[in-house]
Amino acid sequence: MVKTIAWRENQVVMIDQRKLPMKERYVVCKDYRSVIRAIQDLVIRGAPAIGVAAAMGVALGALKIRASRTDRFRARFDAICREMVAARPTAANLAWAVERMKQVADQTSHRGPEEVKLRLVEEAQKILEEDIAINRAMGRHGHRLLKDGNRVLTHCNAGALATGGYGTALGVVRAAVEAGKRIEVLSDETRPFLQGARLTAWEMKASGIPVTVITDNSAGYFMQNGRVDAVIVGADRSAANGDVANKIGTYMVAVLAKAHKIPFYVAAPMSTIDASIKTGREIPIEQRDEKEVTHLRGGRTVPDGVGAENPAFDMTPHRYVSAIITEKGVLTPPFKPKIRRLFTSA
Amino acid sequence: MVKTIAWRENQVVMIDQRKLPMKERYVVCKDYRSVIRAIQDLVIRGAPAIGVAAAMGVALGALKIRASRTDRFRARFDAICREMVAARPTAANLAWAVERMKQVADQTSHRGPEEVKLRLVEEAQKILEEDIAINRAMGRHGHRLLKDGNRVLTHCNAGALATGGYGTALGVVRAAVEAGKRIEVLSDETRPFLQGARLTAWEMKASGIPVTVITDNSAGYFMQNGRVDAVIVGADRSAANGDVANKIGTYMVAVLAKAHKIPFYVAAPMSTIDASIKTGREIPIEQRDEKEVTHLRGGRTVPDGVGAENPAFDMTPHRYVSAIITEKGVLTPPFKPKIRRLFTSA
Repeated sequence: MVKTIAWRENQVVMIDQRKLPMKERYVVCKDYRSVIRAIQDLVIRGAPAIGVAAAMGVALGALKIRASRTDRFRARFDAICREMVAARPTAANLAWAVERMKQVADQTSHRGPEEVKLRLVEEAQKILEEDIAINRAMGRHGHRLLKDGNRVLTHCNAGALATGGYGTALGVVRAAVEAGKRIEVLSDETRPFLQGARLTAWEMKASGIPVTVITDNSAGYFMQNGRVDAVIVGADRSAANGDVANKIGTYMVAVLAKAHKIPFYVAAPMSTIDASIKTGREIPIEQRDEKEVTHLRGGRTVPDGVGAENPAFDMTPHRYVSAIITEKGVLTPPFKPKIRRLFTSA
Repeated sequence: MVKTIAWRENQVVMIDQRKLPMKERYVVCKDYRSVIRAIQDLVIRGAPAIGVAAAMGVALGALKIRASRTDRFRARFDAICREMVAARPTAANLAWAVERMKQVADQTSHRGPEEVKLRLVEEAQKILEEDIAINRAMGRHGHRLLKDGNRVLTHCNAGALATGGYGTALGVVRAAVEAGKRIEVLSDETRPFLQGARLTAWEMKASGIPVTVITDNSAGYFMQNGRVDAVIVGADRSAANGDVANKIGTYMVAVLAKAHKIPFYVAAPMSTIDASIKTGREIPIEQRDEKEVTHLRGGRTVPDGVGAENPAFDMTPHRYVSAIITEKGVLTPPFKPKIRRLFTSA
């Protein structure tokens, strides 16, 4: 399988997700600022993948710091971390990964900058490897929710390309297929960036899992016509009460699923759960450039002088969520006490 | 205002809605088959506009029939009518307009083919003029549902371009603005054909009514954030019980509106109400070429070997509809007896 992101000879290599599936191109980042740009420009996207990229990005930044004194190194490193965390506001994994890198710097600072750099590079790669293991654990727990013959609707791409590999929501689908179940995927195309039409379709095709693309606005039609048995989506950030921020349109799918009594599952690794916030209303929703909506393949579709709004995420209240799949197991409502327990037992 | 469709020297001229707003081009139809093609290829779309086009199309077909005997003329004319009705399956107006043309042929057949042809050409133009008058009547009745300062979400294009002129859903908005109310329009872009992004945005801009384009999947976000006071959409066909078939995604908007307690209004001229069918389940839903979903501006976005489904319409059960706006007045639930009365008193 194509790798989403890799550390190669002190460079970060990412498959360019803006160009898939039409072209398989790679972006090579030689410094942390180009990693930030890659995150902002959607070369790489998906909360877990952004977390890995952020970790690798600050490791790359650390490597280039010329400071023999620990305090000077640390001041510069902290500044890099702050820049990295600010790259995109919604996904919890950016802050989570950078925090983890800072802890490594804390723990090894007594050995001096050069040693810290080595440990940071190691840690970034460890975050990548762990992410894949976490996805596989989510798959093991989550696939029990799916039955042989199920038709699963997903929104956006919460697959190998959104993570270190394997995927969160699509990891659950993969695990069900590996367990011998026949699963068909309906993939919302997911405007404006078309992660569903481009990335989910590409991944599922490559893995031999049947997939059909539909427009976002037809999800209700397929539910109404008995064509959807379950919905599984990923998460960019969840609150302590189980409210979930995810790609714009997730909330629409959740409301439709409830109206049709179809289970709505969220595959959310613990790195996406922000237990420091009480409800989803506190999650910042990124507003992206209107051009992503008004232009297609470089040309305008919306008339000159008419604007667009482009919220990149939305928030689904926990009452719409049937279960949250984590690497520690499947949580069912009420989520609040179970999420609390998850973090205190961790 | 640009004309959607016009009869000019025994030709039918339509603005090419596939190219708006990027280019203002016209398609000239010289025979009925090119009118059918224009309807199928979405040069012209919108139930009332399709009705006008169908009427003009069969008039064009009639003009070209070389038969002096009435029975031969009529056999050929009926064949043309059958072909026209089959052009697209969902909108009620195709069959409605063709039926009206056949009645004119019935009533004038004793005068011979040449006289029938003249009357058919007259009738087609009358249908166009009446359509505009009907839209204005709908606006007069419907605008009372909107208050000064309302933000109105609409889906697809139920405007001047979808009708003879003025519009059904957007006609209600126009009438509210003409009555001095400040109305802002949120326009779902409406994949895959982007009628909202291209046509509704273009029309509203041209009329000086503030309009913002959003992706279809963000309608829920804007409702959740208190940004939508009312929804108004058009209709392609309604059943006797008030179930409404309209552009794919309408059902999604209706379910979201109900979840947010936002009124959901359907602007449906009587020509779109098919009182011969009991419920929306009987309305045929057109399935269009998957290429409309898998390709953008001529290039694939969905990977090779992955298919798409492209239902062009969906059906909204009447329980989601707050009111149906017709040229005879505004109907509120229960719709069934009120629709029956509308047709018996007509």
